[in-house]
Amino acid sequence: MERRLTWQLPHWLFTELDLTSPRRSDEEKMELAIDIARHNVQHGGGPFGAIVLDTDTGRVVAAGANLVVPQGCSLLHAEIVAIAFAQAELRSYTLAAGNHELVTSSEPCVQCLGAVHWSGLRRLVCGAPLGAAEASGFDEGPRSAAWKEELAARGIAVTDHVLAERAGAVLADYARSGGVLYNAR
Amino acid sequence: MERRLTWQLPHWLFTELDLTSPRRSDEEKMELAIDIARHNVQHGGGPFGAIVLDTDTGRVVAAGANLVVPQGCSLLHAEIVAIAFAQAELRSYTLAAGNHELVTSSEPCVQCLGAVHWSGLRRLVCGAPLGAAEASGFDEGPRSAAWKEELAARGIAVTDHVLAERAGAVLADYARSGGVLYNAR
Repeated sequence: MERRLTWQLPHWLFTELDLTSPRRSDEEKMELAIDIARHNVQHGGGPFGAIVLDTDTGRVVAAGANLVVPQGCSLLHAEIVAIAFAQAELRSYTLAAGNHELVTSSEPCVQCLGAVHWSGLRRLVCGAPLGAAEASGFDEGPRSAAWKEELAARGIAVTDHVLAERAGAVLADYARSGGVLYNAR
Repeated sequence: MERRLTWQLPHWLFTELDLTSPRRSDEEKMELAIDIARHNVQHGGGPFGAIVLDTDTGRVVAAGANLVVPQGCSLLHAEIVAIAFAQAELRSYTLAAGNHELVTSSEPCVQCLGAVHWSGLRRLVCGAPLGAAEASGFDEGPRSAAWKEELAARGIAVTDHVLAERAGAVLADYARSGGVLYNAR
Protein backbone atom coordinates (compact mmCIF):
# COMPACT_ATOMS: atom_id res chain seq x y z
CA MET A 1 0.00 0.00 0.00
CA GLU A 2 1.22 3.47 -0.90
CA ARG A 3 1.80 5.67 2.12
CA ARG A 4 2.67 8.85 0.31
CA LEU A 5 1.22 10.65 -2.69
CA THR A 6 2.67 13.48 -4.71
CA TRP A 7 0.82 15.96 -6.91
CA GLN A 8 3.15 17.78 -9.26
CA LEU A 9 2.36 20.94 -11.22
CA PRO A 10 3.47 20.75 -14.85
CA HIS A 11 6.73 22.49 -15.73
CA TRP A 12 5.13 24.50 -18.57
CA LEU A 13 2.87 26.32 -16.11
CA PHE A 14 5.92 28.25 -14.92
CA THR A 15 7.82 28.56 -18.19
CA GLU A 16 5.04 29.29 -20.69
CA LEU A 17 2.76 31.50 -18.61
CA ASP A 18 3.23 34.65 -16.58
CA LEU A 19 2.13 33.83 -13.02
CA THR A 20 3.98 36.72 -11.40
CA SER A 21 2.27 39.86 -12.76
CA PRO A 22 -0.71 41.00 -10.69
CA ARG A 23 -4.12 40.81 -12.40
CA ARG A 24 -6.64 43.49 -11.58
CA SER A 25 -9.76 43.06 -13.67
CA ASP A 26 -11.87 39.92 -13.88
CA GLU A 27 -11.10 39.81 -17.61
CA GLU A 28 -7.32 39.82 -17.01
CA LYS A 29 -7.72 37.07 -14.45
CA MET A 30 -9.93 34.99 -16.72
CA GLU A 31 -7.49 35.40 -19.61
CA LEU A 32 -4.85 33.64 -17.54
CA ALA A 33 -7.24 30.81 -16.56
CA ILE A 34 -8.19 30.34 -20.23
CA ASP A 35 -4.52 30.41 -21.29
CA ILE A 36 -3.78 27.67 -18.76
CA ALA A 37 -6.64 25.58 -20.18
CA ARG A 38 -5.33 26.05 -23.75
CA HIS A 39 -1.76 25.20 -22.79
CA ASN A 40 -2.93 22.16 -20.84
CA VAL A 41 -4.65 20.77 -23.94
CA GLN A 42 -1.49 21.37 -25.99
CA HIS A 43 0.39 19.30 -23.40
CA GLY A 44 -2.11 16.43 -23.45
CA GLY A 45 -4.36 17.43 -20.54
CA GLY A 46 -8.02 18.40 -20.20
CA PRO A 47 -9.38 21.81 -21.32
CA PHE A 48 -9.68 23.40 -17.89
CA GLY A 49 -7.61 26.00 -16.04
CA ALA A 50 -8.00 27.83 -12.74
CA ILE A 51 -6.14 30.28 -10.50
CA VAL A 52 -6.43 31.44 -6.92
CA LEU A 53 -5.69 35.12 -6.42
CA ASP A 54 -5.33 37.50 -3.52
CA THR A 55 -8.27 39.80 -4.29
CA ASP A 56 -6.69 42.81 -2.59
CA THR A 57 -3.38 42.75 -4.50
CA GLY A 58 -4.26 40.82 -7.66
CA ARG A 59 -1.34 38.48 -6.98
CA VAL A 60 -1.65 34.94 -8.31
CA VAL A 61 -1.31 32.67 -5.27
CA ALA A 62 -1.60 29.37 -7.14
CA ALA A 63 -2.48 27.98 -10.54
CA GLY A 64 -4.11 24.72 -11.50
CA ALA A 65 -4.81 22.75 -14.65
CA ASN A 66 -6.80 19.56 -15.05
CA LEU A 67 -4.29 16.80 -14.23
CA VAL A 68 -6.71 13.85 -13.93
CA VAL A 69 -5.25 11.70 -16.70
CA PRO A 70 -1.51 12.53 -16.45
CA GLN A 71 -1.43 12.15 -12.66
CA GLY A 72 -3.94 9.32 -12.38
CA CYS A 73 -6.38 10.90 -9.96
CA SER A 74 -10.03 11.76 -10.58
CA LEU A 75 -9.91 14.52 -7.99
CA LEU A 76 -7.43 16.65 -9.91
CA HIS A 77 -9.73 19.06 -11.68
CA ALA A 78 -8.16 22.49 -12.25
CA GLU A 79 -10.07 24.05 -9.33
CA ILE A 80 -9.00 21.35 -6.87
CA VAL A 81 -5.36 21.69 -7.94
CA ALA A 82 -5.47 25.49 -7.54
CA ILE A 83 -7.11 25.26 -4.09
CA ALA A 84 -4.66 22.61 -2.83
CA PHE A 85 -1.60 24.54 -4.00
CA ALA A 86 -2.96 27.86 -2.68
CA GLN A 87 -3.45 26.32 0.76
CA ALA A 88 0.07 24.87 0.58
CA GLU A 89 1.35 28.34 -0.28
CA LEU A 90 -0.44 29.81 2.75
CA ARG A 91 0.46 26.77 4.89
CA SER A 92 -3.13 26.62 6.07
CA TYR A 93 -6.21 24.47 5.50
CA THR A 94 -8.19 27.61 4.87
CA LEU A 95 -7.76 30.61 2.58
CA ALA A 96 -9.97 32.68 4.88
CA ALA A 97 -7.04 34.71 6.21
CA GLY A 98 -7.26 37.53 3.67
CA ASN A 99 -9.51 37.75 0.64
CA HIS A 100 -8.97 34.97 -1.86
CA GLU A 101 -10.84 34.22 -5.04
CA LEU A 102 -10.91 31.29 -7.45
CA VAL A 103 -11.07 32.10 -11.15
CA THR A 104 -11.96 29.10 -13.28
CA SER A 105 -12.25 28.80 -17.05
CA SER A 106 -15.42 26.74 -16.71
CA GLU A 107 -18.23 26.55 -14.13
CA PRO A 108 -17.20 24.03 -11.47
CA CYS A 109 -18.61 20.48 -11.52
CA VAL A 110 -20.43 18.98 -8.55
CA GLN A 111 -17.14 17.93 -6.88
CA CYS A 112 -15.34 21.27 -7.23
CA LEU A 113 -18.40 23.24 -6.21
CA GLY A 114 -18.50 21.16 -3.04
CA ALA A 115 -14.81 21.74 -2.38
CA VAL A 116 -15.22 25.52 -2.68
CA HIS A 117 -17.43 25.49 0.43
CA TRP A 118 -14.62 24.36 2.76
CA SER A 119 -11.72 26.17 1.06
CA GLY A 120 -11.93 29.55 2.76
CA LEU A 121 -12.40 31.27 -0.63
CA ARG A 122 -14.57 34.40 -0.58
CA ARG A 123 -15.25 34.72 -4.28
CA LEU A 124 -15.69 32.48 -7.32
CA VAL A 125 -15.36 33.77 -10.89
CA CYS A 126 -16.44 31.50 -13.76
CA GLY A 127 -15.88 31.64 -17.51
CA ALA A 128 -17.71 29.14 -19.70
CA PRO A 129 -21.19 28.31 -18.47
CA LEU A 130 -22.15 24.76 -17.55
CA GLY A 131 -23.85 24.20 -20.88
CA ALA A 132 -20.60 24.76 -22.78
CA ALA A 133 -18.85 21.92 -20.94
CA GLU A 134 -21.83 19.62 -21.29
CA ALA A 135 -22.27 20.43 -24.97
CA SER A 136 -18.65 19.32 -25.37
CA GLY A 137 -19.46 15.97 -23.75
CA PHE A 138 -18.36 16.56 -20.15
CA ASP A 139 -20.69 15.42 -17.39
CA GLU A 140 -20.72 18.04 -14.65
CA GLY A 141 -22.82 15.95 -12.27
CA PRO A 142 -25.98 16.65 -10.25
CA ARG A 143 -25.26 20.26 -9.36
CA SER A 144 -27.74 22.26 -7.37
CA ALA A 145 -29.84 24.76 -9.34
CA ALA A 146 -29.42 27.15 -6.39
CA TRP A 147 -25.61 26.91 -6.30
CA LYS A 148 -24.99 30.65 -6.37
CA GLU A 149 -27.38 31.29 -3.50
CA GLU A 150 -25.89 28.37 -1.54
CA LEU A 151 -22.38 29.80 -1.91
CA ALA A 152 -23.61 33.32 -1.11
CA ALA A 153 -25.23 32.01 2.08
CA ARG A 154 -21.73 30.90 3.16
CA GLY A 155 -20.11 34.22 2.30
CA ILE A 156 -18.79 33.26 -1.14
CA ALA A 157 -19.76 35.67 -3.92
CA VAL A 158 -20.10 34.43 -7.51
CA THR A 159 -19.44 36.27 -10.77
CA ASP A 160 -20.02 34.20 -13.87
CA HIS A 161 -19.97 34.44 -17.67
CA VAL A 162 -16.63 36.33 -17.67
CA LEU A 163 -15.17 36.01 -21.20
CA ALA A 164 -17.68 33.18 -21.55
CA GLU A 165 -17.34 32.92 -25.32
CA ARG A 166 -13.53 32.68 -25.31
CA ALA A 167 -13.64 30.25 -22.42
CA GLY A 168 -16.26 28.10 -24.14
CA ALA A 169 -14.21 28.01 -27.33
CA VAL A 170 -11.48 26.03 -25.52
CA LEU A 171 -14.03 23.32 -24.71
CA ALA A 172 -15.51 23.27 -28.20
CA ASP A 173 -12.06 23.07 -29.82
CA TYR A 174 -11.11 20.21 -27.50
CA ALA A 175 -14.24 18.23 -28.37
CA ARG A 176 -13.77 18.90 -32.09
CA SER A 177 -10.18 17.64 -31.98
CA GLY A 178 -11.36 14.36 -30.42
CA GLY A 179 -9.93 14.97 -26.92
CA VAL A 180 -10.44 12.26 -24.28
CA LEU A 181 -13.66 12.60 -22.28
CA TYR A 182 -12.55 10.61 -19.22
CA ASN A 183 -15.29 9.27 -17.00
CA ALA A 184 -17.90 10.81 -19.29
CA ARG A 185 -21.06 8.72 -19.37
CA MET B 1 5.22 29.05 -5.51
CA GLU B 2 5.09 25.40 -4.52
CA ARG B 3 5.32 23.04 -7.48
CA ARG B 4 4.83 19.78 -5.66
CA LEU B 5 2.55 18.63 -2.91
CA THR B 6 2.98 15.47 -0.89
CA TRP B 7 0.27 13.80 1.20
CA GLN B 8 1.40 11.37 3.80
CA LEU B 9 -0.77 8.76 5.47
CA PRO B 10 -0.21 8.66 9.22
CA HIS B 11 2.13 5.98 10.52
CA TRP B 12 -0.41 4.67 13.07
CA LEU B 13 -2.76 3.65 10.26
CA PHE B 14 -0.39 0.80 9.46
CA THR B 15 0.84 -0.04 12.95
CA GLU B 16 -2.34 0.23 15.03
CA LEU B 17 -4.90 -1.14 12.58
CA ASP B 18 -5.19 -4.32 10.55
CA LEU B 19 -5.46 -3.27 6.90
CA THR B 20 -4.43 -6.64 5.46
CA SER B 21 -7.24 -9.03 6.49
CA PRO B 22 -10.11 -9.18 4.00
CA ARG B 23 -13.47 -7.86 5.23
CA ARG B 24 -16.58 -9.62 4.02
CA SER B 25 -19.66 -8.13 5.67
CA ASP B 26 -20.65 -4.48 5.67
CA GLU B 27 -20.41 -4.55 9.47
CA GLU B 28 -16.80 -5.80 9.40
CA LYS B 29 -15.93 -3.11 6.87
CA MET B 30 -17.64 -0.39 8.88
CA GLU B 31 -15.89 -1.51 12.06
CA LEU B 32 -12.57 -0.73 10.41
CA ALA B 33 -13.75 2.69 9.16
CA ILE B 34 -14.98 3.53 12.68
CA ASP B 35 -11.72 2.30 14.24
CA ILE B 36 -9.80 4.60 11.90
CA ALA B 37 -12.00 7.54 12.97
CA ARG B 38 -11.41 6.75 16.68
CA HIS B 39 -7.67 6.37 16.24
CA ASN B 40 -7.50 9.58 14.21
CA VAL B 41 -9.09 11.51 17.07
CA GLN B 42 -6.59 9.98 19.52
CA HIS B 43 -3.82 11.27 17.26
CA GLY B 44 -5.24 14.79 17.04
CA GLY B 45 -7.27 14.50 13.81
CA GLY B 46 -10.97 14.78 12.94
CA PRO B 47 -13.48 12.02 13.80
CA PHE B 48 -13.81 10.53 10.34
CA GLY B 49 -12.45 7.35 8.73
CA ALA B 50 -12.96 5.67 5.34
CA ILE B 51 -11.70 2.72 3.35
CA VAL B 52 -11.85 1.63 -0.29
CA LEU B 53 -12.27 -2.11 -0.76
CA ASP B 54 -12.32 -4.54 -3.63
CA THR B 55 -15.92 -5.75 -3.32
CA ASP B 56 -15.18 -9.15 -4.86
CA THR B 57 -12.34 -10.11 -2.52
CA GLY B 58 -12.95 -7.92 0.52
CA ARG B 59 -9.37 -6.68 0.30
CA VAL B 60 -8.69 -3.20 1.66
CA VAL B 61 -7.23 -1.22 -1.25
CA ALA B 62 -6.68 2.03 0.65
CA ALA B 63 -7.53 3.69 3.94
CA GLY B 64 -8.13 7.33 4.74
CA ALA B 65 -8.58 9.49 7.79
CA ASN B 66 -9.47 13.15 7.98
CA LEU B 67 -6.11 14.95 7.57
CA VAL B 68 -7.39 18.51 7.02
CA VAL B 69 -5.71 20.13 10.01
CA PRO B 70 -2.44 18.13 10.28
CA GLN B 71 -1.71 18.38 6.54
CA GLY B 72 -3.13 21.86 5.97
CA CYS B 73 -5.62 21.11 3.22
CA SER B 74 -9.39 21.49 3.31
CA LEU B 75 -9.80 18.78 0.68
CA LEU B 76 -8.40 16.00 2.83
CA HIS B 77 -11.57 14.51 4.26
CA ALA B 78 -11.30 10.78 4.97
CA GLU B 79 -13.19 9.83 1.78
CA ILE B 80 -10.97 12.00 -0.44
CA VAL B 81 -7.82 10.53 1.11
CA ALA B 82 -9.10 6.97 0.61
CA ILE B 83 -10.08 7.64 -3.03
CA ALA B 84 -6.76 9.32 -3.88
CA PHE B 85 -4.68 6.52 -2.34
CA ALA B 86 -6.85 3.80 -3.91
CA GLN B 87 -6.34 5.35 -7.36
CA ALA B 88 -2.60 5.57 -6.65
CA GLU B 89 -2.64 1.89 -5.70
CA LEU B 90 -4.39 1.02 -9.00
CA ARG B 91 -2.27 3.55 -10.92
CA SER B 92 -5.42 4.84 -12.58
CA TYR B 93 -7.69 7.86 -12.39
CA THR B 94 -10.66 5.54 -12.11
CA LEU B 95 -11.52 2.62 -9.85
CA ALA B 96 -13.96 1.32 -12.47
CA ALA B 97 -11.68 -1.57 -13.44
CA GLY B 98 -13.15 -4.11 -11.03
CA ASN B 99 -15.73 -3.51 -8.32
CA HIS B 100 -14.68 -1.00 -5.72
CA GLU B 101 -16.62 0.39 -2.79
CA LEU B 102 -16.08 3.23 -0.36
CA VAL B 103 -17.00 2.59 3.27
CA THR B 104 -17.15 5.76 5.32
CA SER B 105 -17.84 6.23 9.02
CA SER B 106 -20.10 9.21 8.30
CA GLU B 107 -22.33 10.23 5.37
CA PRO B 108 -20.17 12.22 2.93
CA CYS B 109 -20.35 16.01 2.88
CA VAL B 110 -21.17 17.96 -0.29
CA GLN B 111 -17.52 17.86 -1.46
CA CYS B 112 -16.94 14.13 -0.95
CA LEU B 113 -20.32 13.23 -2.42
CA GLY B 114 -19.31 15.15 -5.53
CA ALA B 115 -15.94 13.40 -5.71
CA VAL B 116 -17.58 9.96 -5.55
CA HIS B 117 -19.24 10.63 -8.92
CA TRP B 118 -15.91 10.72 -10.81
CA SER B 119 -14.01 8.14 -8.78
CA GLY B 120 -15.08 4.96 -10.57
CA LEU B 121 -16.53 3.58 -7.33
CA ARG B 122 -19.57 1.31 -7.73
CA ARG B 123 -20.80 1.32 -4.18
CA LEU B 124 -20.92 3.64 -1.18
CA VAL B 125 -21.51 2.38 2.38
CA CYS B 126 -22.20 4.95 5.12
CA GLY B 127 -22.23 4.71 8.92
CA ALA B 128 -23.44 7.71 10.89
CA PRO B 129 -26.26 9.60 9.20
CA LEU B 130 -25.88 13.24 8.24
CA GLY B 131 -27.76 14.41 11.32
CA ALA B 132 -25.16 12.88 13.63
CA ALA B 133 -22.34 14.94 12.12
CA GLU B 134 -24.44 18.10 12.09
CA ALA B 135 -25.62 17.55 15.67
CA SER B 136 -21.93 17.44 16.59
CA GLY B 137 -21.38 20.84 14.96
CA PHE B 138 -20.02 19.85 11.53
CA ASP B 139 -21.47 21.60 8.50
CA GLU B 140 -21.96 19.07 5.72
CA GLY B 141 -22.94 21.67 3.12
CA PRO B 142 -25.85 21.98 0.69
CA ARG B 143 -26.22 18.32 -0.18
CA SER B 144 -28.93 17.19 -2.54
CA ALA B 145 -31.96 15.54 -0.94
CA ALA B 146 -31.94 13.07 -3.85
CA TRP B 147 -28.26 12.07 -3.42
CA LYS B 148 -28.90 8.33 -3.36
CA GLU B 149 -30.96 8.44 -6.55
CA GLU B 150 -28.36 10.67 -8.21
CA LEU B 151 -25.58 8.20 -7.39
CA ALA B 152 -27.75 5.24 -8.44
CA ALA B 153 -28.41 6.93 -11.79
CA ARG B 154 -24.63 6.82 -12.35
CA GLY B 155 -24.30 3.19 -11.35
CA ILE B 156 -23.22 3.76 -7.74
CA ALA B 157 -25.29 1.86 -5.18
CA VAL B 158 -25.71 3.23 -1.64
CA THR B 159 -26.13 1.33 1.64
CA ASP B 160 -26.44 3.54 4.69
CA HIS B 161 -26.98 3.40 8.45
CA VAL B 162 -24.47 0.53 8.86
CA LEU B 163 -23.49 0.44 12.57
CA ALA B 164 -24.97 3.94 12.63
CA GLU B 165 -25.10 4.17 16.41
CA ARG B 166 -21.44 3.15 16.93
CA ALA B 167 -20.37 5.44 14.10
CA GLY B 168 -22.37 8.34 15.50
CA ALA B 169 -20.85 7.84 18.96
CA VAL B 170 -17.40 8.78 17.58
CA LEU B 171 -18.80 12.15 16.50
CA ALA B 172 -20.67 12.75 19.75
CA ASP B 173 -17.58 11.85 21.82
CA TYR B 174 -15.46 14.21 19.73
CA ALA B 175 -17.88 17.11 20.19
CA ARG B 176 -18.16 16.40 23.94
CA SER B 177 -14.38 16.45 24.34
CA GLY B 178 -14.20 19.89 22.68
CA GLY B 179 -12.57 18.77 19.42
CA VAL B 180 -11.82 21.43 16.79
CA LEU B 181 -14.70 22.11 14.37
CA TYR B 182 -12.61 23.55 11.53
CA ASN B 183 -14.49 25.61 8.97
CA ALA B 184 -17.71 25.06 10.91
CA ARG B 185 -20.03 28.04 10.66
